[in-house]
Amino acid sequence: MAGLAKGLAIVEAFTAHRSQLTVTDAAKATGITPAAARRCLLTLRELGYLQQDGGYFRPTPRMMRLGAAYLEAAGLPSLAQPFVLAARDELTESVSVAVYEDGSALIVARAEVQRIVNTGVRLGAQMPAYASASGRVLLTGLSEAELESYLESCTPVRTTPNTLMTIPEIRSRIELARVEGVAFTNEELELGVRSMAVPVTDSSGAVRAAMTASTFTARASIDEMRGKFLPVLRRQAEGLSRML
Amino acid sequence: MAGLAKGLAIVEAFTAHRSQLTVTDAAKATGITPAAARRCLLTLRELGYLQQDGGYFRPTPRMMRLGAAYLEAAGLPSLAQPFVLAARDELTESVSVAVYEDGSALIVARAEVQRIVNTGVRLGAQMPAYASASGRVLLTGLSEAELESYLESCTPVRTTPNTLMTIPEIRSRIELARVEGVAFTNEELELGVRSMAVPVTDSSGAVRAAMTASTFTARASIDEMRGKFLPVLRRQAEGLSRML
Repeated sequence: MAGLAKGLAIVEAFTAHRSQLTVTDAAKATGITPAAARRCLLTLRELGYLQQDGGYFRPTPRMMRLGAAYLEAAGLPSLAQPFVLAARDELTESVSVAVYEDGSALIVARAEVQRIVNTGVRLGAQMPAYASASGRVLLTGLSEAELESYLESCTPVRTTPNTLMTIPEIRSRIELARVEGVAFTNEELELGVRSMAVPVTDSSGAVRAAMTASTFTARASIDEMRGKFLPVLRRQAEGLSRML
Repeated sequence: MAGLAKGLAIVEAFTAHRSQLTVTDAAKATGITPAAARRCLLTLRELGYLQQDGGYFRPTPRMMRLGAAYLEAAGLPSLAQPFVLAARDELTESVSVAVYEDGSALIVARAEVQRIVNTGVRLGAQMPAYASASGRVLLTGLSEAELESYLESCTPVRTTPNTLMTIPEIRSRIELARVEGVAFTNEELELGVRSMAVPVTDSSGAVRAAMTASTFTARASIDEMRGKFLPVLRRQAEGLSRML
């Protein structure tokens, strides 16, 4: 089964910044030998998941069938959709639901507003948990031991002048999120963008997901977001929570 | 590399109707031996793509990373997003962009309106090409030989009393779509739903995708859709076409 693991690592290696890969690129991105990477790329091409143009391999639409399995089979994306749509319509801001996945907040449901510029976040996108509002809410759902182990392995990467760069600062913001039931980021992950997230819990009270609204700094201050966004996010997150 | 092909076949076997699979189910759905299916399921579980509950395996959110590769790396989904959002806002109906993939119209971009009941079509969903408005538009993009070969292998499945069940009827609707530059379905795929689709072409004039709006029969007749939907769909599809 080593072939399966290698092939899936290569599928995951394609991103917005690496939209096409050569054999060498694929080997480098995954730590697989060039010979094995080449076999995987050719197999993925034969199966219809990649197309080849000279030395470059690029994903085909068929690749989407692989992700569709979770979207179709899991309950959460379908259950969340009406609530993110309702929150978007009330706020006229893009709204997402994300789950914790291996150190990241992974977006599983999303409703967008139309803007000339949008935040470029989409279904299936992953944001580092320590640096995102959704991530900090999701981290409140870990046990003490899991959270400590996450923070020990966490190496903050500066993406704006506001990025939190020390573990004690990050830990205190997660604790605040646990106490207040809301987390925000103020241009910490991306300049010009503010986000606010609240937990989605199941019937046992466990944090299962985070519902997040993001806006541009020109549109709302953090105080305005608390006044206007928070009641809407809480109401829609509670609606979704009652179904879990 | 046989392991990779088998593993991906199992990933694709999870759907809304088969949200969890046993070893026996997975073997049956994919034509793989139970022993090989079991090895694939266990490997996928070890890699974090499946969770196991007794004898049942279910997709985890990590599965979405596999589909995200196409969404992030391919140009079309990102380019299409502003145009489907604009069309949705003008029509207050859900709008999709689909590409042709192995006999199906596969949705790669979508903007939804909020409704109590929605059509349940989502990103990554596949509809049979012969029976859907998007599919009929996409089939106009095949060469004569490809279209004949598709129609030869096509076995219509009745899903409503209106489903077209003969190849000559289907062929004539595809020819009409080629001449008129628009295709529609009138409760042929799903009772109560009407759809209208127009082609998205690249600079060489080749059909690359279809842009589709769907509505409930109570909301608009086909004539009303021609009057109200068609100009909007054409304008947005042309906007997208200019970028390809």
